[in-house]
Amino acid sequence: MSGGCPYFEKRHLLFKSKLHLEEEEEDDSQEGINKASKGGIIYGDYLQLDKVVTAQVLQSELKGNKIHDEHLFIVTHQAYELWFKQILWELDSVREIFISGHVRDERNMLKVNTRIHRIVMIFRLLVDQFAVLETMTALDFYDFREYLSPASGFQSLQFRLLENKIGVLDNLRVPYNRRHYRDNFKGHESEMLLRSEKEPCLLKLVEKWLERTPGLEEDGFNFWVKLEANIFEGLSLEKNKIEVLAKMQDSEEKEEMMEEMTKQKELFTSLFDVKRHEHLLGKGERRISYKALQGALMIYFYREEPRFQVPFQLLSNLMDIDTLMTKWRYNHVCMVHRMIGSKAGTGGSSGYHYLRSTVSDRYKVFVDLFNLAMFLIPRHWVPKLDPNEHTFLFTAEYCDSSYCSSEDSD
Amino acid sequence: MSGGCPYFEKRHLLFKSKLHLEEEEEDDSQEGINKASKGGIIYGDYLQLDKVVTAQVLQSELKGNKIHDEHLFIVTHQAYELWFKQILWELDSVREIFISGHVRDERNMLKVNTRIHRIVMIFRLLVDQFAVLETMTALDFYDFREYLSPASGFQSLQFRLLENKIGVLDNLRVPYNRRHYRDNFKGHESEMLLRSEKEPCLLKLVEKWLERTPGLEEDGFNFWVKLEANIFEGLSLEKNKIEVLAKMQDSEEKEEMMEEMTKQKELFTSLFDVKRHEHLLGKGERRISYKALQGALMIYFYREEPRFQVPFQLLSNLMDIDTLMTKWRYNHVCMVHRMIGSKAGTGGSSGYHYLRSTVSDRYKVFVDLFNLAMFLIPRHWVPKLDPNEHTFLFTAEYCDSSYCSSEDSD
Amino acid sequence: MSGGCPYFEKRHLLFKSKLHLEEEEEDDSQEGINKASKGGIIYGDYLQLDKVVTAQVLQSELKGNKIHDEHLFIVTHQAYELWFKQILWELDSVREIFISGHVRDERNMLKVNTRIHRIVMIFRLLVDQFAVLETMTALDFYDFREYLSPASGFQSLQFRLLENKIGVLDNLRVPYNRRHYRDNFKGHESEMLLRSEKEPCLLKLVEKWLERTPGLEEDGFNFWVKLEANIFEGLSLEKNKIEVLAKMQDSEEKEEMMEEMTKQKELFTSLFDVKRHEHLLGKGERRISYKALQGALMIYFYREEPRFQVPFQLLSNLMDIDTLMTKWRYNHVCMVHRMIGSKAGTGGSSGYHYLRSTVSDRYKVFVDLFNLAMFLIPRHWVPKLDPNEHTFLFTAEYCDSSYCSSEDSD
Amino acid sequence: MSGGCPYFEKRHLLFKSKLHLEEEEEDDSQEGINKASKGGIIYGDYLQLDKVVTAQVLQSELKGNKIHDEHLFIVTHQAYELWFKQILWELDSVREIFISGHVRDERNMLKVNTRIHRIVMIFRLLVDQFAVLETMTALDFYDFREYLSPASGFQSLQFRLLENKIGVLDNLRVPYNRRHYRDNFKGHESEMLLRSEKEPCLLKLVEKWLERTPGLEEDGFNFWVKLEANIFEGLSLEKNKIEVLAKMQDSEEKEEMMEEMTKQKELFTSLFDVKRHEHLLGKGERRISYKALQGALMIYFYREEPRFQVPFQLLSNLMDIDTLMTKWRYNHVCMVHRMIGSKAGTGGSSGYHYLRSTVSDRYKVFVDLFNLAMFLIPRHWVPKLDPNEHTFLFTAEYCDSSYCSSEDSD
Repeated sequence: MSGGCPYFEKRHLLFKSKLHLEEEEEDDSQEGINKASKGGIIYGDYLQLDKVVTAQVLQSELKGNKIHDEHLFIVTHQAYELWFKQILWELDSVREIFISGHVRDERNMLKVNTRIHRIVMIFRLLVDQFAVLETMTALDFYDFREYLSPASGFQSLQFRLLENKIGVLDNLRVPYNRRHYRDNFKGHESEMLLRSEKEPCLLKLVEKWLERTPGLEEDGFNFWVKLEANIFEGLSLEKNKIEVLAKMQDSEEKEEMMEEMTKQKELFTSLFDVKRHEHLLGKGERRISYKALQGALMIYFYREEPRFQVPFQLLSNLMDIDTLMTKWRYNHVCMVHRMIGSKAGTGGSSGYHYLRSTVSDRYKVFVDLFNLAMFLIPRHWVPKLDPNEHTFLFTAEYCDSSYCSSEDSD
Repeated sequence: MSGGCPYFEKRHLLFKSKLHLEEEEEDDSQEGINKASKGGIIYGDYLQLDKVVTAQVLQSELKGNKIHDEHLFIVTHQAYELWFKQILWELDSVREIFISGHVRDERNMLKVNTRIHRIVMIFRLLVDQFAVLETMTALDFYDFREYLSPASGFQSLQFRLLENKIGVLDNLRVPYNRRHYRDNFKGHESEMLLRSEKEPCLLKLVEKWLERTPGLEEDGFNFWVKLEANIFEGLSLEKNKIEVLAKMQDSEEKEEMMEEMTKQKELFTSLFDVKRHEHLLGKGERRISYKALQGALMIYFYREEPRFQVPFQLLSNLMDIDTLMTKWRYNHVCMVHRMIGSKAGTGGSSGYHYLRSTVSDRYKVFVDLFNLAMFLIPRHWVPKLDPNEHTFLFTAEYCDSSYCSSEDSD
Repeated sequence: MSGGCPYFEKRHLLFKSKLHLEEEEEDDSQEGINKASKGGIIYGDYLQLDKVVTAQVLQSELKGNKIHDEHLFIVTHQAYELWFKQILWELDSVREIFISGHVRDERNMLKVNTRIHRIVMIFRLLVDQFAVLETMTALDFYDFREYLSPASGFQSLQFRLLENKIGVLDNLRVPYNRRHYRDNFKGHESEMLLRSEKEPCLLKLVEKWLERTPGLEEDGFNFWVKLEANIFEGLSLEKNKIEVLAKMQDSEEKEEMMEEMTKQKELFTSLFDVKRHEHLLGKGERRISYKALQGALMIYFYREEPRFQVPFQLLSNLMDIDTLMTKWRYNHVCMVHRMIGSKAGTGGSSGYHYLRSTVSDRYKVFVDLFNLAMFLIPRHWVPKLDPNEHTFLFTAEYCDSSYCSSEDSD
Repeated sequence: MSGGCPYFEKRHLLFKSKLHLEEEEEDDSQEGINKASKGGIIYGDYLQLDKVVTAQVLQSELKGNKIHDEHLFIVTHQAYELWFKQILWELDSVREIFISGHVRDERNMLKVNTRIHRIVMIFRLLVDQFAVLETMTALDFYDFREYLSPASGFQSLQFRLLENKIGVLDNLRVPYNRRHYRDNFKGHESEMLLRSEKEPCLLKLVEKWLERTPGLEEDGFNFWVKLEANIFEGLSLEKNKIEVLAKMQDSEEKEEMMEEMTKQKELFTSLFDVKRHEHLLGKGERRISYKALQGALMIYFYREEPRFQVPFQLLSNLMDIDTLMTKWRYNHVCMVHRMIGSKAGTGGSSGYHYLRSTVSDRYKVFVDLFNLAMFLIPRHWVPKLDPNEHTFLFTAEYCDSSYCSSEDSD
C-alpha cells in the first residue's frame, strides 16, 4: 500500500489461506465491505476514505459565503486530530505494558522505547505542519473566522486526553476565562477526561519503574549513599586545591572560587535533603518521588552499562516529548499572533496571552529529567562498578509468566 | 481554533448576527449539529471527528490477530489522503481561474501563485511524513501485511486524479503488470479518472497562458525574432574573439574552444527550429507548445519587470511541485525497499522495481521549464527594453467584467 | 559544483575567454591559487577548505583530555556562524537597495523580496539544526563544558549585528548580569555594534518605504480618511441591526452584543487616534510611524492589486523572519534547559532564565505587522477602488536614472 | 554557548582550577589566543571565526563582476563540507571502536549506536539544506557559473573519503568522462583516497561483528540449521493446507497458490544455498559474508532479546545512512536539473545524466540489510529460545582489559 505500492503479492494469499481455515467463523466481520477480488479488501475501503475525505464541510459555504481557505483550516485540524489519535494509541499501549507489569520482562524495553520514539517523530511532524497552515494569511482567516464561533481548539478532546495521560497536572493548568478546562466538554467527554486524570499517567508509571532501578537497594550496591560520600569527599578535595592554588595566585580569584565552592556545596546538600525534595514536590517544581529521582540519576551515570542503555534512551525520548509539546505550543502561539494579533487591551481574556502562558515549565511533565543536569559530576566521582562483582548491570531479567501473555498485551 | 485557541470572541457574534438576519432561511442547514451554545458549532462537530477519528479499523484485529503497528499504517495513509484532498482543492480552484479566463485579470495572479505555493508546502510536508512511517520496521510490517491483500496504493484514486490534473500523460505512464492504471479502479472511479484525463490539466492551462505572454506579438516587441538575432550576433562576436585570442595563446585551447563554439551554435540553432520542437513534442521530451516555450523564456529573461515578477514566481513554484512529486516518489521507493526488499528474481513484477521506474523524467510535467536552463545567455544578449517605450511590462491588465464575478469563482 | 557536479563544461571556457581579453589586467588577483588546469580554480581552493575544515581545535584536547563530542559542539556553532554571515550578506544588500533609493524603481522589488525570503529559508534551517546538537546529552556536554569558560554565545558578534540591523532595540534588550550587551565585546567589535545601531535598520527602512505607499496622499485617494468613514458607518449599521434583532430575540444576547459593539468602537477609535499611537510608540509597543502603519494596512486590504502583490509578500516574509528568530531563541532555550537544567536557586543569574526572558515580544521587530490583524474588517467596508479611475495600483514606477546604476548596487 | 548562552558559570572555573594545577605545563598551548578574562577563551577565538567567516571570496568579484548570489553558493558548500568533517569524525571514532576490538565490550554499543545515529541526523539536515540553495534560480547561477570552471563537486575530497569509509566500492562507481574518480585529485589527496580504500570500511567492520553474533555457533544454538529446518517444515505444512483447502474451493485459486508456493520454496532454497551467495557477492548484489548475513537475520528475528536491542537499532541506523545518502544524491540531481537543465544532445557527458546514474543501488552499501526483508517468516517459524536454557541473550559480555583503555579510544 503506501500510496502506489503493490506489496501484496500472491505470497500473502498463501498465508492468508491458512488463516481462513483457522478462523473461518470470523469471516463475516468482513461482510458488506466491497471486495475488489475474492477474499480481499481494497485500498479505499480499508482506509474508510468514504468517511475521511468527505468530512470537509465548510461553515462559510453553509452560510452562503464559501471561503476557499476554510478547507485548509479544516484539513489541517483533521490531520492534527488523526495524529493525536495515533499518539494516544502508542501512549495507551506503553502505559498498558507498564501497568500490566510486563515492563519487568526487559525484552519489552525495545517495544516501549520504540513506541515512545514514534511519538517523538509524530510531534516533530506536527511542529513542522504549522508551515502549511501559515500559508493562510490573517486576512484569509478573517473572511471565515466568524462562522466558526464558538468552536475552539480548547474543545479538542484528544489533546486534553493526551496531556492528562502524559501527566500534565490539573492544578498546574493555566485557567482560561475562569472556567475549569473540563467545562468546555460535553458530558461523556468530560467523564472521559476525569477518568484519564485518575488513571496512572505516563509520568507516574515511569516513576514507579525508576524506583525499581537495580543498584538502589540499600542492602545491595546502595548507590545513593555511595554517591553522597563521593561528592562530599570530592568537594572537600577541591577546596584544598583552591587553597593551595590561592597561595600562588591572586586573592581575588580565590575568593571567587570559594564563593562558587560554597554554592556547589549548598546545591549538593540540597540534593541529598529529602525534606527539601518533599517541599519542591508540593510546589510542583519536582514531579517524581525521591527514590525515582535517584533511579534516574543512576541511569544517567551508568548509561553505558548494558542494562541501562535502552533505559537511558527512554529517558532522552521522554525529554524529547516534553520539549516537542512545548515547541508545538509555542509554534501555535506564533501562528495565533499572526492570525489575530495580540488583542491587548480589548478587555476579556486574550487568546494570544492565554496561549502564551501555557508555554511554561508548568506544562512540562518530565521536568526532573531536565533539572538533574544541575547535579552532574566529574566521571571519577561516580561510585565505581566492578563488572565481576556487580553483575546486575550485565544480566537482564525476564518474566516467564508474562512472556507468554506479552503478545496479547500488545 | 487550531488546537487550543479561543480566537472566536464575542466580536464575531456581532458580525454573525448580521448574517443571521440576512440568511435566516439557510439556518436549517445546521440542524442536527450539536451546538455548545446558541447559534454556534463546537470543535468536534465542525471537524466531523466522529467520522475522522473512528475510521481506523485494523484488518489484523478483525482476523483475530491484532497487530499494534497496523494502526500507524492506517493513520499515515489517511493523513496522506487528507492532504491529497487539500491539494486537489487548491488545484481545482487554480484550474478554474485559468479556465474561466479570470487569469486575464492580473489581480488574480496573487491568488494563483499563493495556492500553487500552498501545494508546494503540502508536498514538502508529505515528503517529511515518511519519517513517521519509517519508525515501523520491515518485521513489524510483515506481521500484518498479509491481511491487506490485495489493497494497494495503486488504488489511491486521489493520487491518480492529482497526477492527471497536473498533467502526467497516460501514454508516458509505466505499465504495471501489463494492466492499464485505470483498471485498478471501480466503475465510477474509473470514469472520474477518464474525465480528469479529458479536462484541461494544469500544464495545458499554463501553456495557454504562456502563449499570451505580452511581448511575443510579432507586430509588437517581437521578442523571439529579436532574441534570435542577438544570440547569433553574440556567437559570431565570440568566434572572432577566439580567433584573436588564438594568435596569442596555444592552439590546443583554440581548438577546444572552437569545438565548444560549434556545439553552442548547434544548440541555439535547435532552439529556433520549430520542426525540431514538434519532433521532441511527439516523443514527450517537450510538453508545451513552441509559443509557450517562447513565453516562458521571455518571463525568465525579464523576470524583474513589474508584470513578470509574480509570473516568474509561479514558474518556480510549478518546478517545485514537479521536483517534490518526484522526491515523494523516491522517498516512497526507499521505504518500500526497506519494507519488502528488492524481490529481484522472485518472478512476476516487483513492487520495488516498478516504483523505481516511476521516479523518471517521464513523470515530470513541467520538464520544459527545467530544460530552458540550457538556453540561458549573457545579460547583454537579452533584447533591450526601454521602459519609456515598452510600457506593457509596467502596466497590468484587468478585466472589469470578470472582476465582479471573480469573488464567485473563488 | 554543488557537491559532485560537473556543471562547468567547456562552454564556459568560451565566455571566460572573452573575459580574459577584457580584464587581462585583473588576472594576477588569481595568482598563488593552485590551479588544477590552466586558467581555472579547483573546488577546495575556491571554498578555502584549508581554512574552513581545519578550524576545529578542541579545548579538551589542548588540556590533555580529549572529549569526542566537543567536535560536534564546534562544528555546529561554526555552521551557525556561516549562515549568520549569509544572512548579513542578504540583509546588507537589501538595506543598500532601500538606502540608495533603488527601491523606488519597482523592478527591484523582486530582488528585495527574494533575498528576504532567502533569509526566511536560512532561519528555517537554523531552527531545524538544533536537532543535530541535541544528539549530544547533558552528560556528554558536562565532560568538556568547563574548558570553554568563559566563552559564551553572548559573544557572537554576528548575531548581535543581525539583531541590530533588523531592528532589535537597545533599550528593549533584557540586561544580562547587569552589563550592557556591548560590554561583552572587544574594542573594534564593540564599535561595529555601535555603528550598526546607528545605521538605518531594516525596520526603519521598511517604515520609510511604507510611508510612501501610493494611495495615502491626502490630495489623492486619501485612504485613511475614507477608511475611517467606512468603519464608523459600518459599526453604526451593525448597531442598528442588533437593535432590530433584539426585538426578536432574548435580551441577554442583545446586551452581550452591545457590550461587544462598544469594545469594537473603542478599538477602532484607538486606531484613528494619533496621540494614542505616539503613546504606544513611546512604550515600544508600536515600532513604526503612524503613516507607515496606514501604508501597511493599505497593502493588506488591497493586496491583490498588481502593484501590491509583491509588497504584500514582503510584509509576510518580514513577519516570518520575526517568527523564526523567536522560534530559534525558543529552541535554544529548550536545548539549554536540557544541557544545564534550570539552575534555579544557585544564586547569580541563570543562563536558562535569562534566555527564556529573551523569547519575548520585546525582541519582535515587526510587531506592528502582526498586531494589525486586530483591525481587520469585512471586505465591503474597504474603500472601493475603480480600476479605471485609480490606475495608480496598475502602473508600476521605475527610475531611469537609478536603473543604469542598479546593477552596480547589486 | 550556542549563540547567546552563558553556561559557563564560575562553577567551571572551580574544576578548571584543578586542571590548571595538574596540567600547568600544557598551558602555553593557549598562548597567543586572545583571552577575554584571565585563564579563559572567548567565543570568536574558540571557533576560529577569523578563518571561518572570512573564507568567502567571490570569483565573480575577483573578475570584476561581483554577483550577489555567489556568496550563497560558497556558504552552502562550506556548510556541507563542515558537516562532512563532522560525519568523518563520528565515522572514524566508530571504526576505531570496531578495529580496536573494544566493540566486544558491550558497554561500547551505546556509544557506537549514538554516533551512527548522529550521522543519520546530520544527513537529514543535509538533505533539507538544499532548500536554501534552491532559493537561487538557474538565471542567478548562470551569472557566475562561468567563473567557477573547472571547479566541481567531484573534487570534494571529504565526500569521497566518506563514501570509501562507509563502503562504496571502487569498481561499482559509475565512471565519469572515462576517468577514474581519484584522477580528479591532487597527489596527496589521491593518496588519502587510496589509503581510505584500503583501510577497513564500516561495512567490513560491521560484517566481522555480525559474524560473531551469539547463537550462530554450530556447537551451540546453531541458529542457521534450526531455521532451515523450521522453514521447510512450515512450507510443507502450508502445502498440505492448500490441498485441503482446494477440495473446498475452486481450482483456479488452488493453482495460483501452488504457483506461489513453488516460488516461495525457490526463494528460501536460494537463501540456504551458499554457492548462490558467493555468486551474488561476485556480482556486487550482496556485499557481506554468508555468516554475517546469518547474524543479521538472527538479530532481526530475536531483536527483543536484551542483548540484541541495541544491535537491532544499529542495523536500522545503518540502513538510514544508506537511504539518506541516496536521498542526498537524488536531491542533488533535482537541483542540478533545475540549474543547468538536462543538456541532452549537447554531446559530451552530461552532468545531470551522470549524477542521475549515481542514484543507484550500486551506491548502496548496506543493501543486504534491506534485502533480508524478502526472507521474513511468520513468528512461529522462528526457532524457539528458552530463556532459562539460552541465557546468552540475557547476559552481556565485557572485556575488562579493554575497559580501562576504552576512554582512550574515544
